Amino acid sequence: MAIKTLSAKAAAALDKELMSTGAFSIDQLMELAGLSVSQVVYRVHPRNKGNRVLVACGPGNNGGDGLVAARHLRHYGYQPTIYYPKRSKSDLYQRLAKQLEDLDVPFVEDFPSALKSTDHIVDAIFGFSFSGEVREPFPGVIRALEETKLPVTSVDAPSSWNIEEGPPKSGVGSSFHPEFLISLTAPKPLVKHFQGRHFVGGRFVSPAIAKKYDFEVPEYQGLDQFVETSPTGQKL
Amino acid sequence: MAIKTLSAKAAAALDKELMSTGAFSIDQLMELAGLSVSQVVYRVHPRNKGNRVLVACGPGNNGGDGLVAARHLRHYGYQPTIYYPKRSKSDLYQRLAKQLEDLDVPFVEDFPSALKSTDHIVDAIFGFSFSGEVREPFPGVIRALEETKLPVTSVDAPSSWNIEEGPPKSGVGSSFHPEFLISLTAPKPLVKHFQGRHFVGGRFVSPAIAKKYDFEVPEYQGLDQFVETSPTGQKL
Repeated sequence: MAIKTLSAKAAAALDKELMSTGAFSIDQLMELAGLSVSQVVYRVHPRNKGNRVLVACGPGNNGGDGLVAARHLRHYGYQPTIYYPKRSKSDLYQRLAKQLEDLDVPFVEDFPSALKSTDHIVDAIFGFSFSGEVREPFPGVIRALEETKLPVTSVDAPSSWNIEEGPPKSGVGSSFHPEFLISLTAPKPLVKHFQGRHFVGGRFVSPAIAKKYDFEVPEYQGLDQFVETSPTGQKL
Repeated sequence: MAIKTLSAKAAAALDKELMSTGAFSIDQLMELAGLSVSQVVYRVHPRNKGNRVLVACGPGNNGGDGLVAARHLRHYGYQPTIYYPKRSKSDLYQRLAKQLEDLDVPFVEDFPSALKSTDHIVDAIFGFSFSGEVREPFPGVIRALEETKLPVTSVDAPSSWNIEEGPPKSGVGSSFHPEFLISLTAPKPLVKHFQGRHFVGGRFVSPAIAKKYDFEVPEYQGLDQFVETSPTGQKL
């Protein structure tokens, strides 16, 4: 069975529907999305493998998911550091940042330096709404992620990848292949080009909504907010 | 070491602080509180012991925690039924109810009948802001909870108990002794009168805030959003 994927357009419509007829607030959805990301990181990087985690956050919702994940990781006992160079001015994002500051989580401005003192990385730079060119200051960040030997967990999309087409043919991001990817609500078409371990998170979609968008709610286990599947959709 | 407890007044001040200087929204806090309740229910009532759960929700925040817990339980594969006779008109509560309706979770009006077709019960009627008399229609509900042989999990307080003094000396609730209690953020003074298994949930309090309110963040394990402690505060 081929994996069912959600185009960027469908993913945007689904988000909109969850927050209108679905009656979810963005605070709720982001909390649950970020929680699922934190649980995947906990699974793939047990703390005894190194508890320093650098979370790179972009300016939009993907970055917000990263901020939430970082907070949960802090509560699990990790030592997160946040790189968040283009802060959103919206109230929600400012609050998510404040919640981290209150836990003494450091925000840093020099990504290459931060890379030298971490054990793994969460890429929460761009999500399904990304298209076109990677804007400053992120090209250098993506290049650093291409070069690092440290494991990277990407949220919803390896940042810089085209949501439908996968990695760019050339230039920034063309050789960015993160070890781990967590797709939120459902995989995007780019997953076909992904070679690492793949997870789906976002345990809040009703079967009715999934059916409407032509995918299936994955078979989450126990209390897990994520499930591991192969990039072709088979449960592992 | 005697357990550190939070008076009703201190608990109200803490909630207010989390939502002002703490920068949390009520949506976030309720999501995480309800999630912790759902995880405790999963721990004490594995689905193979009976997956029908009746969630009794009061008109305030305690009821909201119950609505969130019921949604997560539904996603875990339980069959929740909701008794929610005094619906709040606030937007948040209406949205939480809608999220359950979208998962085909039934709302019932006859509590005694619902009791006959469930395996266990979540008591999310009154929390730390309860004082005085139990108002209609809840006296009959509390009496039914006193009489049932089914296990009850109370959220933050066995409903009808005085937050400082414990069970009423006589009348409604005087013989209500739930099997399980989950205290949110920190136990309330009534915990001294509680004889069952006790949990603490709410893994979002910073050490600085806990210190200010003179309690300690419990030692949560792994990804757990709750921790079991004895009612006297020792970790189990």
